[in-house]
Amino acid sequence: MKRIAVYAGSFDPVTYGHIDIIKRAVRIFDSVIVAVAHNTGKNPLFGLAERVAMLKKAPRGIRNVKIEDFAGLAVDYVSQCGANVLIRGLRMVSDFEYEFQMALTNRKLNEKIETIFLMPNEAYSYLSSTLIKEAAILGADVSDFVPAFIGKRLKAKLKSKVWTR
Amino acid sequence: MKRIAVYAGSFDPVTYGHIDIIKRAVRIFDSVIVAVAHNTGKNPLFGLAERVAMLKKAPRGIRNVKIEDFAGLAVDYVSQCGANVLIRGLRMVSDFEYEFQMALTNRKLNEKIETIFLMPNEAYSYLSSTLIKEAAILGADVSDFVPAFIGKRLKAKLKSKVWTR
Amino acid sequence: MKRIAVYAGSFDPVTYGHIDIIKRAVRIFDSVIVAVAHNTGKNPLFGLAERVAMLKKAPRGIRNVKIEDFAGLAVDYVSQCGANVLIRGLRMVSDFEYEFQMALTNRKLNEKIETIFLMPNEAYSYLSSTLIKEAAILGADVSDFVPAFIGKRLKAKLKSKVWTR
Amino acid sequence: MKRIAVYAGSFDPVTYGHIDIIKRAVRIFDSVIVAVAHNTGKNPLFGLAERVAMLKKAPRGIRNVKIEDFAGLAVDYVSQCGANVLIRGLRMVSDFEYEFQMALTNRKLNEKIETIFLMPNEAYSYLSSTLIKEAAILGADVSDFVPAFIGKRLKAKLKSKVWTR
Amino acid sequence: MKRIAVYAGSFDPVTYGHIDIIKRAVRIFDSVIVAVAHNTGKNPLFGLAERVAMLKKAPRGIRNVKIEDFAGLAVDYVSQCGANVLIRGLRMVSDFEYEFQMALTNRKLNEKIETIFLMPNEAYSYLSSTLIKEAAILGADVSDFVPAFIGKRLKAKLKSKVWTR
Amino acid sequence: MKRIAVYAGSFDPVTYGHIDIIKRAVRIFDSVIVAVAHNTGKNPLFGLAERVAMLKKAPRGIRNVKIEDFAGLAVDYVSQCGANVLIRGLRMVSDFEYEFQMALTNRKLNEKIETIFLMPNEAYSYLSSTLIKEAAILGADVSDFVPAFIGKRLKAKLKSKVWTR
Repeated sequence: MKRIAVYAGSFDPVTYGHIDIIKRAVRIFDSVIVAVAHNTGKNPLFGLAERVAMLKKAPRGIRNVKIEDFAGLAVDYVSQCGANVLIRGLRMVSDFEYEFQMALTNRKLNEKIETIFLMPNEAYSYLSSTLIKEAAILGADVSDFVPAFIGKRLKAKLKSKVWTR
Repeated sequence: MKRIAVYAGSFDPVTYGHIDIIKRAVRIFDSVIVAVAHNTGKNPLFGLAERVAMLKKAPRGIRNVKIEDFAGLAVDYVSQCGANVLIRGLRMVSDFEYEFQMALTNRKLNEKIETIFLMPNEAYSYLSSTLIKEAAILGADVSDFVPAFIGKRLKAKLKSKVWTR
Repeated sequence: MKRIAVYAGSFDPVTYGHIDIIKRAVRIFDSVIVAVAHNTGKNPLFGLAERVAMLKKAPRGIRNVKIEDFAGLAVDYVSQCGANVLIRGLRMVSDFEYEFQMALTNRKLNEKIETIFLMPNEAYSYLSSTLIKEAAILGADVSDFVPAFIGKRLKAKLKSKVWTR
Repeated sequence: MKRIAVYAGSFDPVTYGHIDIIKRAVRIFDSVIVAVAHNTGKNPLFGLAERVAMLKKAPRGIRNVKIEDFAGLAVDYVSQCGANVLIRGLRMVSDFEYEFQMALTNRKLNEKIETIFLMPNEAYSYLSSTLIKEAAILGADVSDFVPAFIGKRLKAKLKSKVWTR
Repeated sequence: MKRIAVYAGSFDPVTYGHIDIIKRAVRIFDSVIVAVAHNTGKNPLFGLAERVAMLKKAPRGIRNVKIEDFAGLAVDYVSQCGANVLIRGLRMVSDFEYEFQMALTNRKLNEKIETIFLMPNEAYSYLSSTLIKEAAILGADVSDFVPAFIGKRLKAKLKSKVWTR
Repeated sequence: MKRIAVYAGSFDPVTYGHIDIIKRAVRIFDSVIVAVAHNTGKNPLFGLAERVAMLKKAPRGIRNVKIEDFAGLAVDYVSQCGANVLIRGLRMVSDFEYEFQMALTNRKLNEKIETIFLMPNEAYSYLSSTLIKEAAILGADVSDFVPAFIGKRLKAKLKSKVWTR
């Protein structure tokens, strides 16, 4: 039996922390689907197509990974993929409460899907897409947090916006 | 002396978790007032009248409960009710920090009002109105989280909105 | 109906934090029983009789409080008292996990007994009997943490012990 | 490729929470080895053979599970089993800090072994072997927490001990 | 060598908690620069000039403090000041996760700047500018939280706004 | 004015995490005293003289550091040193509650001494002397956690003990 797992998120943009989780996941499962959410409720900086494109380019040389996008509930998408595992990264400084609520709510919505938590390398334990965007807005060099080509796109994207805050 | 307690919140909408707390509260106090806040600062999905109406219909067969609405500070309302106890539900995955800040700020605002924390059944330890709304937006069946008639209203309400995110 | 609540603990020794909780509890309930545990599993410094005696002397001028001792399960004792409420102090820096485990385990052992959490004054939010004993061993003046007569007993008790650590 | 995972612990004794994790694990992996630690550092109530025997009897009707015992480091045992996954249950009220320290230390000791966290059913989110033993010492009925035959063994074991606390 | 530290924040408005941290900081460092952020990302209630003015008036009689404003990254500003220490207040109920993320991200952005955490007096352990503003909106007397002249400005400011929530 | 700070602990044994904190402290203060506690209440594996000796040898090439030992209260020792700052390392996975209790209790014992928290490099965010000892007992290679000569002493020390757990 082929073991498939889905790693879902908004990836706005993908960081070294996400890539680290993907690398760990492919060692555990036969196939990993990285699923980019349409409706993130977070008003993403990058459009869906851009987020997918960055993910396709970023984690080079990893086998058995597919990058997809999805709308609707994550558990429904996992089910459509013929998978029964939803992967979440659990950083030391992530929001446990939100993660637990999500995992338990998802279980109620579809009890056949199991959420598993993986820990990224401690070097990425503090990385968040939100903080990286905030730092980039203030002019920071974010090359320790995201691949170089994403740093450039971030810079360009932020310039093109009339930033109101 | 009659022991009155006030359980205040936004109840947008009331969940099985809230109902569980109400059932526990009425066993401890002679009378429990469930107080729905006008100004929740959370841009509620349901209007005040709707939130009150759902609460009046939801927790059937519980005696010694009154459903009211209030504006202004919760501690002032508790005082107006002739009560000295403000009830808060403390879920295993709730935001302790916010709860502690609220309780200590409320104590400073009126030291005669005591905040007490009750724990809901562990089956509801992860329920939040916010998460339920997010799940409903994505098309989830929320019948494990709220009474059936509220699930229907939620569906109707979400359809009637032009959802922008 | 008379509202009785039980505040159970090891009180080894009673601190200003415990006294603060007792003062809050008597404003909420008609009668409060402070119940000192025989078997605390913590190898208490003070014997049961001493812990009870200190509690009887400490919170002066509070009405509607009885100091008792009990063996066995706290929920069984609450039940024997004709009460249905078990009070716990929830300090900002207390061990939530232990408190939640206790509360949920107690609920399973007797679902008629409700645990409620009260917050002490923020001035006592860090007080713990254990830390006070550790400080006293190292020669600290503990008069900010416990009534003067208890500070003296603590000093005498620690001298009389051959301290092995 | 066959996907093997190891669920290691002291299981002193096995609880419904552990059994719930085992049931979830077997849906994710082709084979699950439940590994009972010789040296738990916790001065176990039950001997190694008893703990293994209880585990063999408890989770009835689960396929693809083997119960084993091991000495030394958990990561070394995982490696010997030809597995690369170490499973831990992450209860809402478990000790995250200890779990994170263990996981990161284990990763440093053998970077090929990945720790994954599974959440038990919320009904077991508060269960701990330690608390169950404490409750049993005080005479509690623990049938909600462990299978009946383990409750009996616990009672017998506790009677046979001269209990010193 | 003169030891300079920077205490950066949005101070919208300054509270007794902030003032307490400033008083502690000046005892540790030769000179403390309180730095008010232009771009707080929080849509401040008070303009930059008002926030600076309130800070200049509030902590009376403290020597060796300068009130400044800054744009861009806090670590860059610390560096421009010839300082190598960034001070943060760590309240018992503050958001550790955010603080840790900020501190580690700042370290990556400039490894020469060290973040240190100070604890305010426990009397201010729950104070937050956000909660104070929420309480003031609801008509609360906030004189326990901020100096009297700030309470007045807060009242005036809130009246002048068409409050939309 | 010379700025002196004291970094107190049991250092049983010193780890790369402690050394990292020392390196950060010397950049902030003119002089740092690393103070090894006589009475740790933790039944140390290494004797006081050994712990001091390891600290003297471990953090090579750091200027302005003195290694000392002390008995009694840490705040009293800080005061005797003519210092007013007590340094604590705050790891992402350290025990905040204990740290807060200690800091607030210490403040009550001597309000002139300020506790400041420093964060170690994230690579050491999970290191604890206790866990390292547990791993070493089970035969682990601890060269990622402590300097090589300490790893050897740890091995020798553990062999010489009749290990009872």
